Amino acid sequence: MNKDFLYNEIAGGIAGQIKNGILKAGDRLPSVRTLCQQHGISMNTAKRVFLELESQSLVDSKPQSGYFVSRLPYLKTPLPNVSRPSTVAHENEPEELISKIYANMGRDDLTLFSIGVPSGDLLPIAKLKKEIVLATRALKGGGVEYESLQGNLKLRRMIAFRSLAWGGNLQENDLITTSGGMNALAFCLMALGKPGDTVAMESPCFPGTLQLARSLGLKVLELPTHPSTGIEIDALKKVIDKINICLLVPNFNTPMGSFMPDENKKEVVALLSKHNIPLIEDDIYGDLYFGAQRPKCCKSYDTEGNILYCSSASKTIAPGYRVGWVAPGKYKEQVLKLKLVHSISSASVNQEAVANFLKTGRYENHLRQLRRTLQENYQRYVQTIAEHFPEGTKTSQPQGGVALWVEFDKRIDTAKLYEMAIKHQISIAPGRMFTLQNQFENCMRLCIGLPWSDKLAFKLKQLGTLAKMV
Amino acid sequence: MNKDFLYNEIAGGIAGQIKNGILKAGDRLPSVRTLCQQHGISMNTAKRVFLELESQSLVDSKPQSGYFVSRLPYLKTPLPNVSRPSTVAHENEPEELISKIYANMGRDDLTLFSIGVPSGDLLPIAKLKKEIVLATRALKGGGVEYESLQGNLKLRRMIAFRSLAWGGNLQENDLITTSGGMNALAFCLMALGKPGDTVAMESPCFPGTLQLARSLGLKVLELPTHPSTGIEIDALKKVIDKINICLLVPNFNTPMGSFMPDENKKEVVALLSKHNIPLIEDDIYGDLYFGAQRPKCCKSYDTEGNILYCSSASKTIAPGYRVGWVAPGKYKEQVLKLKLVHSISSASVNQEAVANFLKTGRYENHLRQLRRTLQENYQRYVQTIAEHFPEGTKTSQPQGGVALWVEFDKRIDTAKLYEMAIKHQISIAPGRMFTLQNQFENCMRLCIGLPWSDKLAFKLKQLGTLAKMV
Repeated sequence: MNKDFLYNEIAGGIAGQIKNGILKAGDRLPSVRTLCQQHGISMNTAKRVFLELESQSLVDSKPQSGYFVSRLPYLKTPLPNVSRPSTVAHENEPEELISKIYANMGRDDLTLFSIGVPSGDLLPIAKLKKEIVLATRALKGGGVEYESLQGNLKLRRMIAFRSLAWGGNLQENDLITTSGGMNALAFCLMALGKPGDTVAMESPCFPGTLQLARSLGLKVLELPTHPSTGIEIDALKKVIDKINICLLVPNFNTPMGSFMPDENKKEVVALLSKHNIPLIEDDIYGDLYFGAQRPKCCKSYDTEGNILYCSSASKTIAPGYRVGWVAPGKYKEQVLKLKLVHSISSASVNQEAVANFLKTGRYENHLRQLRRTLQENYQRYVQTIAEHFPEGTKTSQPQGGVALWVEFDKRIDTAKLYEMAIKHQISIAPGRMFTLQNQFENCMRLCIGLPWSDKLAFKLKQLGTLAKMV
Repeated sequence: MNKDFLYNEIAGGIAGQIKNGILKAGDRLPSVRTLCQQHGISMNTAKRVFLELESQSLVDSKPQSGYFVSRLPYLKTPLPNVSRPSTVAHENEPEELISKIYANMGRDDLTLFSIGVPSGDLLPIAKLKKEIVLATRALKGGGVEYESLQGNLKLRRMIAFRSLAWGGNLQENDLITTSGGMNALAFCLMALGKPGDTVAMESPCFPGTLQLARSLGLKVLELPTHPSTGIEIDALKKVIDKINICLLVPNFNTPMGSFMPDENKKEVVALLSKHNIPLIEDDIYGDLYFGAQRPKCCKSYDTEGNILYCSSASKTIAPGYRVGWVAPGKYKEQVLKLKLVHSISSASVNQEAVANFLKTGRYENHLRQLRRTLQENYQRYVQTIAEHFPEGTKTSQPQGGVALWVEFDKRIDTAKLYEMAIKHQISIAPGRMFTLQNQFENCMRLCIGLPWSDKLAFKLKQLGTLAKMV
């Protein structure tokens, strides 16, 4: 029997038992070894079964204990298919659409399902204000003078310390601070690419990254991407000779919230390293996991300095502070030089404030709360969508992050839905924004980083009603 | 008689009278009209006489009153010659030298004649610390959330208001904030140029700008530059068909501190506009004038949106805050898009703090004090150089800014002088840093933005003694 079919069939059987209530939330599943014996399958196939169930949010793994039926309620929306973008680089930038949606940023009169960060209500504003005041006192000269090129030492130290949690083992000297995460990505792409080079990315993908690559004269090759497990490695293998750079968001990327399993991360790192293709890894959502453990990164498996690891404080605590960082591996000198000529140094006070906030342990408390809110929102969104959206609506099943990807029936055009929704003070991010090709016109991204309220629930239901009318 | 010779001769005569003490500090000079009658010359030639005297810092003009003998003491150091760079783009980047000098940034154990900003002792640190605290209170959400793409409205309003002083008449909507001045220049160069394009600049020129242009794949054509009046317009005319972009610092550029007269600004603007070549104008030193009035900018004469005006708060109040701005004229959309994809938005708190500081009038008080200190330092430096440096040492005669350009006899290599000086805890910026060609090896830039003290005087004398030993 075809191996793919086999693991799917076994996973389907277990999924059925969960959905039928035979297996209940919290129940322990058979071990990998037991599953092998029961079905006469290999360890690898058994592992794929659990991976599949995990990617459907039906089971959780607990280290050293095994797999358990997830405590999430049974999700009534099915998963979208793996994306199938063209394997040729396209340049069809949806500029007008993007401008329109970005112009809504900060508008108080709208329900901003379209944003890509947690709303201010979920951020530790009061604590950060105090940290800013303390930072002006702690910094030499109040932070008025240029700081060193590489960036605030305390901040770099804290990021290095925290990298232990994801197996990064970074040193303070590996890191360079930047003006937010996009700035880190920009320096990396400028350091690695020249006009005409091709960069491979997930599809769908964050529009800013697509625009950035295009503005640097790079071609973008969009990769088939599974909504739960990220890029299809076989697809990457097929185009490996066509690409110069790879840029991925392996942990809870936007818009799909896909999460690349450790095995896949390892395989991608080895594959790219073998072909001497640098990987820019964007880990801005990595701290926003719904599971029990901080996920690993591709950088965790990097032995050759081939991975430029980027992240920021924008998705977790303070978008407006513009504090980001990069561990550029063997490309450190190039990135450092770009930082020098593009910005001389980073804004001093903000970095010091973030460094101190990370240091106090308040960050962990805040993250715990934020993750709980995001996960609860995710469940509420899915329930609402299952009840109030057009039949056949599919959603991603993010295991972290702030984005939920919604796929409607083919005939529902989300650019039209946007126009209808905005008249009701609702802003969404239509799927076409997240690609340079003509695809995802029946999809949209919803931000789950808004505080749940009766009003929000009403607006979400209203959106569903409008979708039925497109 | 040759017209050039005529105005030079008349200017020389008046200069002689000043140097001989016949004309004394504060004495009124004959009016332009009187000079015409006395010498039988045209108004234009008479004006050039005063311009020449002004460029030598021998006379000051007072609006509606005429010309007066400068209150500066008679300068005992002659002016360097007009620079004569090759008219072919060179790429000989002095990377090693630059890295070495930049690495000294922030070192407390050195006398940093090499820096390009006023030292922290001359900056309004206590007041800015208060502004930061107030900013976290005033901003919605404490500045933790993303602000609008174009940047803090209050700051843009203050910059627009202040532009009246230099004839800019900017509106808040003309402006985009950036992460410091270099960031503004970077966006402009990226918006205008593609790899292989040629950008014309002053020679000598700020190393960061040279490196930035090179890192974007642009060719740099260095223009012959007069130490007092900036680029030679005839030289620009000769290469006008070879260049795609022009980038100038017309007011007190670094390292020479040259100051382009209004007539020249007007002429350059018209010339570039005629040839449809955009001008990036860097005005970061414009507020640091030693004379009676805020100088005009090229942007003051821009009627077609052909000039991208850049400036920042880094040279006047707070380098470490990274607050800059650009009025990109007709290139606004391109710059705005680059800001979006490279950094999403600016750091909110810093901008609000700078905006409020500009608003209070404390800025004017601070500037008055800073300008006085810089001008006094300039005079002290020149006196010390005249007395303690090798015979034949020439210096620029800046009418503003923080830089003094020193030209030694050809046989004195300032790269060697650097090595000798650093052993005595003195850091200088060798002339070779400021060009991509093999020139200025006998020159150096000294920062006059350090607080004068016995120690500083001693270190400057020591530098002179070392120069005699090279």
